[in-house]
Amino acid sequence: MTSTATQSPAGLQAHYGAVRRATEQLCEPLAIEDYVVQSMPDASPAKWHLAHTTWFFETMVLMPTLPDYQAFSAQFAYLFNSYYNTLGRQFSRPHRGLITRPTVAEVRQYRAYVDHHMSALLDHAERLGTPIPEDVVTLGLHHEQQHQELIITDLKHLLSCNPLRPVYLDTPSRAAPELPPLEWSDYPEGLREIGHEGPGFAFDNETPRHRVFLQAFRLGSRLVTCGEYRAFMEDQGYQRPELWLSDGWKVVQERGWQAPLYWEREDDGWHAFTLGGYRPVVAAEPVTHVSLYEADAYARWAGARLPTEAEWEVAAVEAPVEGNFVEDGNLHPVAVAAAPPATPLQLFGDVWEWTQSPYTPYPGFRPAEGALGEYNAKFMANQYVLRGGSCATPRSHIRATYRNFFPADARWQFSGIRLAQ
Amino acid sequence: MTSTATQSPAGLQAHYGAVRRATEQLCEPLAIEDYVVQSMPDASPAKWHLAHTTWFFETMVLMPTLPDYQAFSAQFAYLFNSYYNTLGRQFSRPHRGLITRPTVAEVRQYRAYVDHHMSALLDHAERLGTPIPEDVVTLGLHHEQQHQELIITDLKHLLSCNPLRPVYLDTPSRAAPELPPLEWSDYPEGLREIGHEGPGFAFDNETPRHRVFLQAFRLGSRLVTCGEYRAFMEDQGYQRPELWLSDGWKVVQERGWQAPLYWEREDDGWHAFTLGGYRPVVAAEPVTHVSLYEADAYARWAGARLPTEAEWEVAAVEAPVEGNFVEDGNLHPVAVAAAPPATPLQLFGDVWEWTQSPYTPYPGFRPAEGALGEYNAKFMANQYVLRGGSCATPRSHIRATYRNFFPADARWQFSGIRLAQ
Amino acid sequence: MTSTATQSPAGLQAHYGAVRRATEQLCEPLAIEDYVVQSMPDASPAKWHLAHTTWFFETMVLMPTLPDYQAFSAQFAYLFNSYYNTLGRQFSRPHRGLITRPTVAEVRQYRAYVDHHMSALLDHAERLGTPIPEDVVTLGLHHEQQHQELIITDLKHLLSCNPLRPVYLDTPSRAAPELPPLEWSDYPEGLREIGHEGPGFAFDNETPRHRVFLQAFRLGSRLVTCGEYRAFMEDQGYQRPELWLSDGWKVVQERGWQAPLYWEREDDGWHAFTLGGYRPVVAAEPVTHVSLYEADAYARWAGARLPTEAEWEVAAVEAPVEGNFVEDGNLHPVAVAAAPPATPLQLFGDVWEWTQSPYTPYPGFRPAEGALGEYNAKFMANQYVLRGGSCATPRSHIRATYRNFFPADARWQFSGIRLAQ
Amino acid sequence: MTSTATQSPAGLQAHYGAVRRATEQLCEPLAIEDYVVQSMPDASPAKWHLAHTTWFFETMVLMPTLPDYQAFSAQFAYLFNSYYNTLGRQFSRPHRGLITRPTVAEVRQYRAYVDHHMSALLDHAERLGTPIPEDVVTLGLHHEQQHQELIITDLKHLLSCNPLRPVYLDTPSRAAPELPPLEWSDYPEGLREIGHEGPGFAFDNETPRHRVFLQAFRLGSRLVTCGEYRAFMEDQGYQRPELWLSDGWKVVQERGWQAPLYWEREDDGWHAFTLGGYRPVVAAEPVTHVSLYEADAYARWAGARLPTEAEWEVAAVEAPVEGNFVEDGNLHPVAVAAAPPATPLQLFGDVWEWTQSPYTPYPGFRPAEGALGEYNAKFMANQYVLRGGSCATPRSHIRATYRNFFPADARWQFSGIRLAQ
Repeated sequence: MTSTATQSPAGLQAHYGAVRRATEQLCEPLAIEDYVVQSMPDASPAKWHLAHTTWFFETMVLMPTLPDYQAFSAQFAYLFNSYYNTLGRQFSRPHRGLITRPTVAEVRQYRAYVDHHMSALLDHAERLGTPIPEDVVTLGLHHEQQHQELIITDLKHLLSCNPLRPVYLDTPSRAAPELPPLEWSDYPEGLREIGHEGPGFAFDNETPRHRVFLQAFRLGSRLVTCGEYRAFMEDQGYQRPELWLSDGWKVVQERGWQAPLYWEREDDGWHAFTLGGYRPVVAAEPVTHVSLYEADAYARWAGARLPTEAEWEVAAVEAPVEGNFVEDGNLHPVAVAAAPPATPLQLFGDVWEWTQSPYTPYPGFRPAEGALGEYNAKFMANQYVLRGGSCATPRSHIRATYRNFFPADARWQFSGIRLAQ
Repeated sequence: MTSTATQSPAGLQAHYGAVRRATEQLCEPLAIEDYVVQSMPDASPAKWHLAHTTWFFETMVLMPTLPDYQAFSAQFAYLFNSYYNTLGRQFSRPHRGLITRPTVAEVRQYRAYVDHHMSALLDHAERLGTPIPEDVVTLGLHHEQQHQELIITDLKHLLSCNPLRPVYLDTPSRAAPELPPLEWSDYPEGLREIGHEGPGFAFDNETPRHRVFLQAFRLGSRLVTCGEYRAFMEDQGYQRPELWLSDGWKVVQERGWQAPLYWEREDDGWHAFTLGGYRPVVAAEPVTHVSLYEADAYARWAGARLPTEAEWEVAAVEAPVEGNFVEDGNLHPVAVAAAPPATPLQLFGDVWEWTQSPYTPYPGFRPAEGALGEYNAKFMANQYVLRGGSCATPRSHIRATYRNFFPADARWQFSGIRLAQ
Repeated sequence: MTSTATQSPAGLQAHYGAVRRATEQLCEPLAIEDYVVQSMPDASPAKWHLAHTTWFFETMVLMPTLPDYQAFSAQFAYLFNSYYNTLGRQFSRPHRGLITRPTVAEVRQYRAYVDHHMSALLDHAERLGTPIPEDVVTLGLHHEQQHQELIITDLKHLLSCNPLRPVYLDTPSRAAPELPPLEWSDYPEGLREIGHEGPGFAFDNETPRHRVFLQAFRLGSRLVTCGEYRAFMEDQGYQRPELWLSDGWKVVQERGWQAPLYWEREDDGWHAFTLGGYRPVVAAEPVTHVSLYEADAYARWAGARLPTEAEWEVAAVEAPVEGNFVEDGNLHPVAVAAAPPATPLQLFGDVWEWTQSPYTPYPGFRPAEGALGEYNAKFMANQYVLRGGSCATPRSHIRATYRNFFPADARWQFSGIRLAQ
Repeated sequence: MTSTATQSPAGLQAHYGAVRRATEQLCEPLAIEDYVVQSMPDASPAKWHLAHTTWFFETMVLMPTLPDYQAFSAQFAYLFNSYYNTLGRQFSRPHRGLITRPTVAEVRQYRAYVDHHMSALLDHAERLGTPIPEDVVTLGLHHEQQHQELIITDLKHLLSCNPLRPVYLDTPSRAAPELPPLEWSDYPEGLREIGHEGPGFAFDNETPRHRVFLQAFRLGSRLVTCGEYRAFMEDQGYQRPELWLSDGWKVVQERGWQAPLYWEREDDGWHAFTLGGYRPVVAAEPVTHVSLYEADAYARWAGARLPTEAEWEVAAVEAPVEGNFVEDGNLHPVAVAAAPPATPLQLFGDVWEWTQSPYTPYPGFRPAEGALGEYNAKFMANQYVLRGGSCATPRSHIRATYRNFFPADARWQFSGIRLAQ
């Protein structure tokens, strides 16, 4: 990651407390039983997320910084390492749901123990000016925010497997406003710069800032909606191979996809499982839980294409970082209210927007040294970049240069579609 | 099942209470987290066992008997049906571990609700002589005892997946007595009868009693021990295809079997995960957690064979139903103490004994009518009969005619080896 | 195998020549391309069968008998060993279809080379009285006859995968006679003997002859026909789980079985792929290419059951070994013509009859010493016994004590159904 | 594709004849048996390639152009369509090896028949000036050249599965020259153009020509050799996760990769299966049959990286299209002889060079209309671009703008490594 020390020690202390508390607040609606289960290999139990984010601070901050620090449990280093080969063997990812012990209560003790030592460390630094690895702490907080989003999406998948359709949280109901038409913003060709150069935090994969040449392009003024996507479905979108990438068509056939994830056809039309309950699909709301394959097929059907990540960033850098984030409590994308302004709407929040850009290193990219170098670089194959954050993203976590990435068939994130031409 | 009404209504009431309480006692050492997880498709979460056994009484006794009975939850009929096609669709067996709700507390309420109504029914019957389906109640209690054993074995498998190796229960440690030599009991050829004819309860698959012609045979005086099995391993037992059934050899290769399930090689010799903790393998204890394939290969190596189920029953019918059962609290087979008596030792308890007999219907067998007919008959393919009960079996559940059955590659039950010639 | 030397050396020479020629005659209709391909793991290419049967004589007869014998090719021992672990590593069974070399011409040279040496050996024995392993030669010839049947069934499967539906051979068309009603032959209870005791050849698995106690039973007077089976299908036989063994129901669901193998529904009714071409199903012909699961479900639907192998043998031992064999050139079961006689019809030929008996060793069974001991014994798990031979079996190959065996889901053999009660 | 008609009708006639003959010459060393078998789902039988390339001309040229044309066989349209959904259902790709009929002789008749009609058409056009779809004919010829390369690589894979290690063709042996050191060519940053703009044939995926901004970069002066790759292996390259992309590491573990495909360790060092026989690995020869994952890990180990496709093209456009092609008859990469010149060596021929560029559409890319639009576009996901052709590529088939593509784990092509920095 890149970061310049912009926070005072007291600010960091407060930042640390706020992020850690936010994680725990997300778990408040859960029964103990909900913390434990892994509903698919890509997802992890909430308990694991609680422990793994804590493991990060223990392993990356406390152990290297405090010579006398006693680890809470020697075995947790193995159990809660996600994928850092440099830090030793990891417990098998698809088996995270088999670990009923430590219990949730013990994991909470682990969090409290590490928070206590982190707080003392930050406090000491504040009072005495002791040097602390502020960059790593900041990285740890952004890492924890990533897992906050995963707690939400993994939990949604888990609860969706239950025929009882449990409600995670009562979410506000909203009258759907009238949908503004889809318009196009024009951007001229030219040599542009993308990537992060500071100030403020960014992940290493957002660097270095560099020049790219863009052809002229147009970007859709808002996200694609459920109503528009339903028109694609009704036009036999899932039955026409010519609309699909070859790999996508194979997946559609093998898994029998007929609609976005969590949609079910009822006698009176399509419904969807949401964190606020099972309810009819709202036409004006942005479509979500679609794969890159579906986004790409939809765009082809609509006579458009997906944007590249450079196009998206060039547009987003001019827009305010505003939108429907986790703090809004919707936990679902909401319909756009306003008429299209100068810049496209909904660039931030609501849904992660699939780009047509495979996830590759920027020219001149160098991963961080040591274990932190495993954070992003090694995943740069067979994934696609998504941009802009979602309704499950913390507002302070996102920025125009942020690069999220998932495989082309992933659907359990809040992923959606913006068109380009 | 076959049964003649040998219990007074008061006796049945007491029987019901005792069996139901025993199930709950088995769960006392568990954390909430331990109730939820399914560690493999063959196993089920403890929560599911608690609910399914209750569902049996609700569906098979209360609903047909009491016209005004209100089901605790309409959805539980779907969630907790195991395999009764006659009773409607079942929730997918390998996904039982995804159901975090109902919570354990709610399942306990379900048990209490059904127990309340069952108690009222039995009480009423006792006082007023109302006819009740005593046979079905009795079947339900034996069914629940089967699930008591599965709670133990499924839990053992789950805990064994955890690198922390949690202890389920402190079990008594025992000095291993000196091992008596393996001797042989002789049985003459002749026309014999096997199968159940009453009095007392039996499952339908134990009937009808019928004649079989047996050649003369010999039966080992005790179970095969860990020490003996280790000699087989050290003689390259797992590396010599000529000792194995063809299917068994394939499984050995594919899964890399080198020892019984739960055994691990440490620098100072073999250890095993037990419900009482991870500890060195004791040479004099009966070997357990072996598949039919391993039992058969061991027998071939030892110049012997496995008994048929008819041979086993002819021997067992003369022996007292005594042994190391779940009530003894060992939850592990124990070394035999005495010198060989007239009849072979350890026929009951300790470990289920693999026979060479595929699980087939007895001549003239007729399954029960309706849903209860699905209890046993439809599993009569590709399984082998095991006899005698184990250290996880309730003492009142076993008898000489009892036929348990598992596929040839199953290892997570307390299954072991007795030799024949 | 058991055998007493009943053949003169000249008789053996003639027998050898006749069986070897019969194999080659079966391949005459083939294009070179047809010899090479393996259409599924259970099947083998015709070229492999030609070579493997030759390998048997080279390895089991020539090499042990003739000290100066030079193997045709050292590598063939590896390539064409089927499953004899005792004789070294085997080439992976599912990859037999990858071996384009040796070519068919080279395999024919191999056959000629071995035939030349075998002929010389038998001739020499004839003239000079040299001792030869007559038992092994006889076993090799019965082994080759088994592979003759497999050549036919494997080839049928291969050709059926081709949308062009190639015809293997023009087979005679026959007017279907009127179907006699299904009647029942009664057999009393009693102690009977089954198994082979000579004279003549038998495989080791048919021994020792031993006593069994049979309850009274009835056997259907003829095989179940396509018309009768279609009635089962039309009565939702493939949609009703209560008719099926649990494993069978799983297979039906997973593989989408709706009819016997090779049946396809056309606008004007069911057709079937046969070695004589694709043609309408004939109601009066015995149904074939059904699994044990389908045979068992049909029997349950029909209010009957499958016979045990002992019941079948007791009936068959009284019947002449007559029927529709490979020499008749139908390569398909044919409708029964006659009215039911004293003994049931069609016991031999037409289709292998599934029994309800798992394939297990007879009491006192001992496999042969050495490599030949692998011939049968190690397959005695998870298979079912079939009896009576089929339209692809050589007439001289079958007898009342013959035990064939296949897994419960196998359908590519000519397997059919006889009912019992 | 893009093409301007640069060939005279007579030239096209000659071109057609030459390309078609070249395909047949590649098959001359084969036995009939070698034409039929499919050794893995990615590969196809030679017979299929012979027929499919013919099907292309029949379907894309003869049928649309000649109103009275009679198809050779109606069923071949189904059997030999590769993946054109627009043209109807396709025969399942992984089952191409099950089609023993039509025979090789029949496929040759099919080729002769189509060649006859193509020749008549081209002749007629030549004499009378009839308009013909020259672009499609030219595309068909380049398509056939692609399949020429696949015939070679698919055949290599097939023969490698045979323990007899058949030799396809005697290839010249060459003394390995002394290896020149790896040096670096420097290229300045700047706005460059890549992609095809004519004259001459190109595939649609090479268009449109467009501007890209490149940072300064360096390119290795020659390909990475077997000796250099062996140093990576000896430095535990296959055992160190930090060198690998995450997906690559998973593949290495799952498939047990320890060396390039076709390498085997013998007592006296590494050997490799080649089309000219099994022989020791030559240190100075370019390494081949490596995946993108291996190429990427090697580059990381060597302190370098793979080039992007734009970097490669900018360098290659200055180099002559010379190298070791299929016409040279080596069918294996050869050691570089000369000292490094102005431009890097071996850019063309020898091995396809993995780039780090995922295969994506160029800005403004539009696939062709109709069935030909399926040629390239739908594969633009989860693949990587390779450049430069190989020792199995026809010399007239390659150019600087040519984009080949394979998944990151593909190894059966002649794929190798060039470094960049």
